[in-house]
Amino acid sequence: MFGYRRVLWVFLLVIATTIGVVTFLGRAIEAGGASKPSVYFEQERSQSADAALRALLTAQAADWNRGDIDAFMRGYWNSPEITFAGTTGVSRGWQTVLDHYHKNYPNRAAMGHLDFSEIEITPLGNDTALILGRWHLNRDAGPVGGIFTLVARRFPEGWRIIHDHTSTDAAK
Amino acid sequence: MFGYRRVLWVFLLVIATTIGVVTFLGRAIEAGGASKPSVYFEQERSQSADAALRALLTAQAADWNRGDIDAFMRGYWNSPEITFAGTTGVSRGWQTVLDHYHKNYPNRAAMGHLDFSEIEITPLGNDTALILGRWHLNRDAGPVGGIFTLVARRFPEGWRIIHDHTSTDAAK
Repeated sequence: MFGYRRVLWVFLLVIATTIGVVTFLGRAIEAGGASKPSVYFEQERSQSADAALRALLTAQAADWNRGDIDAFMRGYWNSPEITFAGTTGVSRGWQTVLDHYHKNYPNRAAMGHLDFSEIEITPLGNDTALILGRWHLNRDAGPVGGIFTLVARRFPEGWRIIHDHTSTDAAK
Repeated sequence: MFGYRRVLWVFLLVIATTIGVVTFLGRAIEAGGASKPSVYFEQERSQSADAALRALLTAQAADWNRGDIDAFMRGYWNSPEITFAGTTGVSRGWQTVLDHYHKNYPNRAAMGHLDFSEIEITPLGNDTALILGRWHLNRDAGPVGGIFTLVARRFPEGWRIIHDHTSTDAAK
């Protein structure tokens, strides 16, 4: 009788431990971000993505307006795979685009003053986002502007633009 | 002595069951696609996304070339939130764009023959993708073409384009 009760107690203890271990593992997997996160966690992540991407665009405009093309280019994924689409087709590679900017904007007067507005950010997953906005460049040669579509990805080092499609408004 | 051995056996049995349950739950969570999938699972999913998106574009071109704008528009997310960017700014809403197409392409001659080429698909997550490609329209008014950036999302009913940024090649 003593043996039976002891078996029962040990059995209950181990069942309780099992439930504890399973619950803990479930939570640990969830906290790792690998499984479906809680609504709060998802919101917190997407809010911070939104803030991070707006900060990136603000930094890029400030870099441009200081005449610092190299700093401006830090917002872009430094890879031969990055793509830029526009009316001249597709350009590929970070270095190609850096060279293009240095060639086409040799000085502050050519660069003018850049503003971004009407920014809309749509999360596409935990680590990618679509950014839609308007650019406006005030320069000696006359103002110019249009719409841009950016796709950004979060890398270990932070968010970077991986694709840029920029249009210039049609003459009215 | 009999009671002690019995406790030991029950203990070992429950430990074995615990390991089994924990392993099973871990795999079940993983198989649900919510946690980090295996490389094979990821590849299988992205391959099928690639195939599905290429099929969507092929169907759209065929619909257009049959003169069926309504069918062509099925590739787009039927929502007021869908966005179309270009040299005329941002258009918003599926119905707006359907009306625009009906107005600007009143007949087969205006629609011409549409081809897509140089399609590149980049998965952005399990359920979103970036599509880059070239469009070419052969019509009585003369050929025209350019680059497009599409962002697509997988809905329960299938992949749909949620954002379209289309450029027309600059005159050479």
